[in-house]
Amino acid sequence: MSLNSLRDIFIGPPLPTKRLAHEKLDNFKALAALSPDALASIAYANQEIFLGLVVAGAAGLAYSWWIAVAIAGLLGVLALSYSQTITAYPSGGGSYTVARENLGVNVGLVAASALLTDYALNVAVSVTAGVAAAISAFPELESYRTGLALLLLLVITLANLRGMREAGAIMTVPVYLFVGTYLLMIVVGGVRLLLGEPPGSFADTAPAATADLGLLLLLHTFATGCTALTGVEAISNGVQVFQEPAARNANRTMAAMAVLMGVLFLGTIGLSQVFAVVKLPHETILSALTRRIFDGWPPFVYYVIQISTLLVLMVAANTSFFGFPRVASILASDGFMPRQLSFIGDRLVFTNGIAVLSALAALLVVLFQGDTHLLIPLFAIGAFLAFTLSQAGMVVHWFKNRQDRTWWLKLLANGLGVTATIAALGIITVSKFVEGAWIVLLLIPAQVLLFRSIRNHYTGVREQLTLYEGLPPELRVLPDPRVVLPIGGVHRGIIYALRYAKSIARTVKAVYIEIEPGSAQQVRERWDEWGLDEEAELVIVQSEYRSIVAPFIEYLDKYDHDTNDGQLATVLLPEFVTAHWWEQFLHNQTAWLIKLTLLYRRRSINKIRAIIDVPMYLQD
Amino acid sequence: MSLNSLRDIFIGPPLPTKRLAHEKLDNFKALAALSPDALASIAYANQEIFLGLVVAGAAGLAYSWWIAVAIAGLLGVLALSYSQTITAYPSGGGSYTVARENLGVNVGLVAASALLTDYALNVAVSVTAGVAAAISAFPELESYRTGLALLLLLVITLANLRGMREAGAIMTVPVYLFVGTYLLMIVVGGVRLLLGEPPGSFADTAPAATADLGLLLLLHTFATGCTALTGVEAISNGVQVFQEPAARNANRTMAAMAVLMGVLFLGTIGLSQVFAVVKLPHETILSALTRRIFDGWPPFVYYVIQISTLLVLMVAANTSFFGFPRVASILASDGFMPRQLSFIGDRLVFTNGIAVLSALAALLVVLFQGDTHLLIPLFAIGAFLAFTLSQAGMVVHWFKNRQDRTWWLKLLANGLGVTATIAALGIITVSKFVEGAWIVLLLIPAQVLLFRSIRNHYTGVREQLTLYEGLPPELRVLPDPRVVLPIGGVHRGIIYALRYAKSIARTVKAVYIEIEPGSAQQVRERWDEWGLDEEAELVIVQSEYRSIVAPFIEYLDKYDHDTNDGQLATVLLPEFVTAHWWEQFLHNQTAWLIKLTLLYRRRSINKIRAIIDVPMYLQD
Repeated sequence: MSLNSLRDIFIGPPLPTKRLAHEKLDNFKALAALSPDALASIAYANQEIFLGLVVAGAAGLAYSWWIAVAIAGLLGVLALSYSQTITAYPSGGGSYTVARENLGVNVGLVAASALLTDYALNVAVSVTAGVAAAISAFPELESYRTGLALLLLLVITLANLRGMREAGAIMTVPVYLFVGTYLLMIVVGGVRLLLGEPPGSFADTAPAATADLGLLLLLHTFATGCTALTGVEAISNGVQVFQEPAARNANRTMAAMAVLMGVLFLGTIGLSQVFAVVKLPHETILSALTRRIFDGWPPFVYYVIQISTLLVLMVAANTSFFGFPRVASILASDGFMPRQLSFIGDRLVFTNGIAVLSALAALLVVLFQGDTHLLIPLFAIGAFLAFTLSQAGMVVHWFKNRQDRTWWLKLLANGLGVTATIAALGIITVSKFVEGAWIVLLLIPAQVLLFRSIRNHYTGVREQLTLYEGLPPELRVLPDPRVVLPIGGVHRGIIYALRYAKSIARTVKAVYIEIEPGSAQQVRERWDEWGLDEEAELVIVQSEYRSIVAPFIEYLDKYDHDTNDGQLATVLLPEFVTAHWWEQFLHNQTAWLIKLTLLYRRRSINKIRAIIDVPMYLQD
Repeated sequence: MSLNSLRDIFIGPPLPTKRLAHEKLDNFKALAALSPDALASIAYANQEIFLGLVVAGAAGLAYSWWIAVAIAGLLGVLALSYSQTITAYPSGGGSYTVARENLGVNVGLVAASALLTDYALNVAVSVTAGVAAAISAFPELESYRTGLALLLLLVITLANLRGMREAGAIMTVPVYLFVGTYLLMIVVGGVRLLLGEPPGSFADTAPAATADLGLLLLLHTFATGCTALTGVEAISNGVQVFQEPAARNANRTMAAMAVLMGVLFLGTIGLSQVFAVVKLPHETILSALTRRIFDGWPPFVYYVIQISTLLVLMVAANTSFFGFPRVASILASDGFMPRQLSFIGDRLVFTNGIAVLSALAALLVVLFQGDTHLLIPLFAIGAFLAFTLSQAGMVVHWFKNRQDRTWWLKLLANGLGVTATIAALGIITVSKFVEGAWIVLLLIPAQVLLFRSIRNHYTGVREQLTLYEGLPPELRVLPDPRVVLPIGGVHRGIIYALRYAKSIARTVKAVYIEIEPGSAQQVRERWDEWGLDEEAELVIVQSEYRSIVAPFIEYLDKYDHDTNDGQLATVLLPEFVTAHWWEQFLHNQTAWLIKLTLLYRRRSINKIRAIIDVPMYLQD
């Protein structure tokens, strides 16, 4: 089976460019496409709030509700603020676009770095949280945590390399299954209370406190809970996928998403507190809540909910595979990232961007041992940095566009947004700094520097390639080439190479590097025996250090220097090509080494050294 | 800092071939050079015997001594048997040589596979056991087990890539330090008993039994303890390093080694049993014994012994770096392994063999999580298979050489050897099969098959390359080449390429693959603007699937087909070479992809397609 047919099975055959058209989504589908990142956040945010408070025992867990209310308030502010972005940027206002346009290139690059970091972290956090949901249901999977997360990642990557255009409809299933089952849980929990079931008390269920309850602990938990808000900007980035009137539809969908998310988040946290739910060691708090609420129901309900949690987290991870390659491609078009990231692959997706994201997420999963809790401190900071810069950009935008009568109202909305996100960003930075936020704070400026140096490279290359300074005169005429071919013996492959050399040049020299003393004698005899001395001069070079490459190149330099005809000799490399690629390892890579050395050794050479490969095909 | 200067620091500058001379060692140095593999085995063999018996509690541990006596008996038989090999093969009788010469190529290959496997396992087992010795002294290192083992492996690999010729004298230090400190321990233990110190009882110290004591458990422990004997063949392989009379000196050294090893092995096991020593969780049994014997002495004595154990295990791992590359090089010279393994590198060592061994050992360390105990079941089986085949070869050798008067005595000695090793091999195979011996039993035939198919490849290539069937007539004359160059735009690099093309051919075509509709128009305008249309025809090819390579090759095939002049067009690839290698990632690898595709696509082509690279150097 060839690599190509394997490729066709997993990724699918190439698609023509004309199928690249923008599909428009109705609000129902758009909600499913753009909100899973935000909605699925409750799977890890609830977990982190529980873990943050449980160290202070029952007294700590009693604050769950108020932490959730504060975060839900922040959600409301963000939704209001981003609805202004939707109005102002109906073609899609990503943080990079908004920050770059209103605050300058450098701030835009900071926003882009924060976004890219956050996309990669979202993938890692979502797949590991998905695995945590699976482990809650099947604890025996615990020891395969990292492997399972990588497997989920592989599935998502392959699906994205295939291109997800047929999958739009399929994706709505897990999203609405998740929303439906969790709403059911909230309703069932409420009914249980109405029917008179007594609420629980953390005093009976919570473990003993190991830390004091204080402001610091509450701020720390708030910071960690803010991961619930990652992804709320997705709708404002994707206004262009809505049907007309796009801005109005996007704003409605944004409102629906915010309300849904508020209900799910406050509902689950509220029920956990009312029923004083605590979790088992290898379980998530949502799993514990589900077991508690559906206590007495058939167990398959519990399993369906765990599976829907896993699936929605996979869809959430998938949203990064939409966002990351697009931001990377915009940066690549602007010259800040390698140009290959802007190429649309033969399945009409940004193949390279998908591969890079997948590799980064895999690295995160492995480095952090598949543990969501270890990844979380890195997570919220990038998102909130992007939020802040985007909102700040919007404030500048409204100030610049003061002709609008209601500009000050809009500025106020975004001003409220930037104030709230700056406050949250400060809390997150300080309280998560030691746990890992510092990594992101180092990474972002490093990325900006990298972006700038890539751009410098491209600018430099363009200047060197331009023809508008006239052709260098020494290029106008090239003399007849001199050809040098290194040989390892006298055989059929050499004859092929020699014939080609004679067809392009009059002067041809064959160079044999003698490593084993005495072997040159035999080569010369065979050279003469086959009458090759009439075609080309055989040169013998001794190698004292058993290297082939170094003496050959020394000879070449000397030959060029002695001839002094203003050009460099062409090197012709007779090369075996084996029937199967792995057989290549059974042959010396001398031709390849000579070529690499010639290309990379001296930088100051202005003359051209052409290198010719003459392949000789080996049969099976 | 360039790669070359880094190389000089860690590996050293190249050495000339004339320094490759065989150094002869006196018996004292030869013992230090050839016996550490065997002597250091007690570090893991004692541990395995303890772990094998402790599951049966005090009753099990009481059998330590008798297991040790059985293994020491086997050691005596092997020493006697190998002294016959020394006499018969004074130039060094490795298992591969002896088995191949007397039992045929296939048996020789089985012996070689067993040897290579065992060399790799010896490295992995020795470095992990060395780390275990270090962890016994510093238990806080426990969590870095795998990393430390890889670090030791790196040190040994670099030392071997450097070449160990200066190191001969240095190596004797850890070997005699190890022998000296362990003999001291045995003497001190004996004196303690003579002075009336009461022996201990396992009834007081051993943990409760968790398994029944039975014949199976004893055989299992015997099998695992046989790892003590790995490495005893080293002296018979290395007769050529002894001073004259080499065979006699080697035989004496062999006897000294066997006696020393018997004393160390029986002494340590005996003292462990007399003082009823048991070990702590993260400790080796030798560490526990050392603590017990030197109880009341200054602690530095204990640390010196742990360090000497670590050092001798590193030297033991090092012996594989002598043996593996040599066996691999013999196999490579016979065409059974890639030819590169027989090359002597510029530090006069088998660089490639060392690298392969190091990679295999690192793989084993990682796969088995740096745990000696998990590696052991794979270990003894290869060694005993090689022992058996080598002894069986010797039996055949003496039977063929019946003119010698004492041939039947020698045959008897080797016959006893083969009987004992076959029995041990059977016990090891059965009792260790499930734990991991099956892996080796699968690996060895797989290796033999690989060796044979490599040899087939080389034979096939030789037949295809021979000139003795006359030159194919179509090679006698080649017409003037046609040159095709793919271009991505009109810039300075293209001009260089075009000039070179015109210097070797009259017909030159430039091919532009249009991906973005409309871009070809601009290229054609600039082509004409610079007057390039006088030099070469510009051909525009549409790409429906956004690929460059496939449409280009389609065009090439069509062009060759239409011209039909009995040859294939030469492809000239203008190629950017960046100032730094990593900048290459900022450019498309189109030239490289085209070349790869041209080389590897169709196998039946008998005509030559030359490929020319014309580099254009980019400045910083």
